[in-house]
Amino acid sequence: MIDLYSTATPNGHKVHIMLEECGLAYNMHHIDIGAGDQFTPDFLAISPNNKIPAIIDSDGPDGKPMSLFESGAILVYLASKVGKFLGTTDREKFTTLQWLMFQMGGVGPMLGQAHHFRMYAPEKIDYAVNRYTNEAKRLYGVIEKRLAESKYLAGDNYTVADIATFPWLRSWEKQGIELSDYPHLQNWFNEISARPAVKKGVTLFADLRKPIADEKSKEILFGATQYAKH
Amino acid sequence: MIDLYSTATPNGHKVHIMLEECGLAYNMHHIDIGAGDQFTPDFLAISPNNKIPAIIDSDGPDGKPMSLFESGAILVYLASKVGKFLGTTDREKFTTLQWLMFQMGGVGPMLGQAHHFRMYAPEKIDYAVNRYTNEAKRLYGVIEKRLAESKYLAGDNYTVADIATFPWLRSWEKQGIELSDYPHLQNWFNEISARPAVKKGVTLFADLRKPIADEKSKEILFGATQYAKH
Repeated sequence: MIDLYSTATPNGHKVHIMLEECGLAYNMHHIDIGAGDQFTPDFLAISPNNKIPAIIDSDGPDGKPMSLFESGAILVYLASKVGKFLGTTDREKFTTLQWLMFQMGGVGPMLGQAHHFRMYAPEKIDYAVNRYTNEAKRLYGVIEKRLAESKYLAGDNYTVADIATFPWLRSWEKQGIELSDYPHLQNWFNEISARPAVKKGVTLFADLRKPIADEKSKEILFGATQYAKH
Repeated sequence: MIDLYSTATPNGHKVHIMLEECGLAYNMHHIDIGAGDQFTPDFLAISPNNKIPAIIDSDGPDGKPMSLFESGAILVYLASKVGKFLGTTDREKFTTLQWLMFQMGGVGPMLGQAHHFRMYAPEKIDYAVNRYTNEAKRLYGVIEKRLAESKYLAGDNYTVADIATFPWLRSWEKQGIELSDYPHLQNWFNEISARPAVKKGVTLFADLRKPIADEKSKEILFGATQYAKH
């Protein structure tokens, strides 16, 4: 059994979708990041970078419980566990890992900065808004070009690279993107959106995630509190 | 034989150090990112996200040439090729992957933003400088806490997680960090700095990397040109 510690954010959705795609049984534990649950000692013990999602698999690779943080590592772990969504040959596996790393190092962090400066920062800073909106457009362009020549990011098969990337692209409006400017990406997006596991995955914890409205949540997420806890 | 396409940046250094640690033979090809080499069709064919480093291994997993981009994927690929620096058991491998993902998704992108807003942005924006300097301190704090309880990031052994993280921490001064505030991290840093492969790796392309001084380079790296090429 897998214990899932998460909430309804793009990084959470990656793992929620993956658990559904794999057909694995899991228990849900909500981490309310607006209330600071990510800084509790119990959570930091499994996720020392104070980020969701994290998992504990009671049946780890050696039969003992194993905890993991970082959505990209969790995706590879679960894919290895079920023998799906990574590719079959070593060539396919490294190609999948390459596009997963592109999501982890580029798509996630940079679209996250776009969300911050376009939506949440207390000041409107044109330079930063433009920087990250331009970077969002550049990244969508890279994905569009790839999907013009390849059915999925890593090749002919749906993999963890798609599962990692899709949840960040769901928020295209927040990123100043018009999805129809990227037709191959849009087709890929629509196809993935229609998968039953994806439809289910994006609903997990959705009713528990509060909008970042009050000052206390803002301070925890963007202010001194986040940095003071270490 | 491995063909290396790179320059002297933290992401480049990861792979330069790794090639030296693995004792693999390689040909060096300099990609001058200040001159826009990363946008040439030949380079984009192996690195569609226009980032260094990239490699072509003439002896891929199926005996045919294989190209790879994304430093994190290249590290895992080379580690798998030589059977080193990933851990031995599956538990160790996933723990290594977890800390490698922490570098790829957090340490690299966020310290990169700190460099940008502290050193290179044409305007001095206090909010952004503080945001990324605070995040740098938080990340160093996470690493310090980990290294207080573990000899290396992934456990008892030096792995690709250390090789990925070290080059970004070499620029601590640029990030507003005082290394002596993080004593366990500093010990780890000094030990890694002294490794012969690390000493050699950080010299690769060093004489070819030009400071970002002229307006043309700034425009390519931070301006419209970067985004116009896709």
